[in-house]
Amino acid sequence: MVEPRSDCPINAAVEVLGDRWSLLVLRDVVFADRRYFRALLTGSVEGIATNILADRLVRLVEAGILTRGTAARGQRARYSLTEAGIRTLPIMYALGDWGLDWRPGGGELRSRQQLMRDEGPAFVEELMDDLRTRHLDTPPRPRDGPGPFERLAAARAAAAEREQADRR
Amino acid sequence: MVEPRSDCPINAAVEVLGDRWSLLVLRDVVFADRRYFRALLTGSVEGIATNILADRLVRLVEAGILTRGTAARGQRARYSLTEAGIRTLPIMYALGDWGLDWRPGGGELRSRQQLMRDEGPAFVEELMDDLRTRHLDTPPRPRDGPGPFERLAAARAAAAEREQADRR
Repeated sequence: MVEPRSDCPINAAVEVLGDRWSLLVLRDVVFADRRYFRALLTGSVEGIATNILADRLVRLVEAGILTRGTAARGQRARYSLTEAGIRTLPIMYALGDWGLDWRPGGGELRSRQQLMRDEGPAFVEELMDDLRTRHLDTPPRPRDGPGPFERLAAARAAAAEREQADRR
Repeated sequence: MVEPRSDCPINAAVEVLGDRWSLLVLRDVVFADRRYFRALLTGSVEGIATNILADRLVRLVEAGILTRGTAARGQRARYSLTEAGIRTLPIMYALGDWGLDWRPGGGELRSRQQLMRDEGPAFVEELMDDLRTRHLDTPPRPRDGPGPFERLAAARAAAAEREQADRR
């Protein structure tokens, strides 16, 4: 890590996360559960380039936001979020919440953000809990009914269906 | 504005705010009340370069986050936050809150973030209200006692004093 440019905590976060790709890589790890290089590359709706993805993964590991699993020869390495990585979720939430109000556009990806807003702050906590189970092997929290990721997937599927119907 | 790379609202926000300087410029407008090019340039603790500052101000105006006041010949133009600009405060809060926990460092700038955390979410709302008065000329909200910016300044001054005392 290079020396931070100042001791401002906003700057400290921006130095690690403030570029056009790092947060999108994290978003795909979090919301699409993409844990492998190939999945992150081919699944990217913004079309991230191979060299940029490789660079950002190295940086995110160096910053302690992701860990890279050890892979046997010929096997793919799996990436996991650290606790610091999981705690970037409120940043992603705040960015998306702003984007929902102040940037144009529709589509199913907006339904995800809309659901998070409708559900309120406890939903982000629930998501972080589920991420701890997925990435840090903490025991799953007992729960009645569908978990937060299932609710997000359902909201997105419903929005996709509505879009399909509109197009017909 | 260029065509967004996707209809994801997180991406939409990152396209406008996701670089190493835009959010720091906004931070200085918000927290240090720097409204002029020269003040933003000379006051920057991270040492922003002239050309980068000029470029980011143009971009932030184009994105509808800042407005640039008309200036008579030979006079300096003053920048103001729009409502969209004021609403980036929760993003700055989330970034700084993360930086406080996961990045090293101490100092008076951290005391600002610590105060915001201690005061809770209503404090960010209060700050946004005061920014509307400063930047959008809405009438000031009646209030008993010091406003949020005064409390931030007091917290920072107290931290600076502690640092001084520690050095002695």
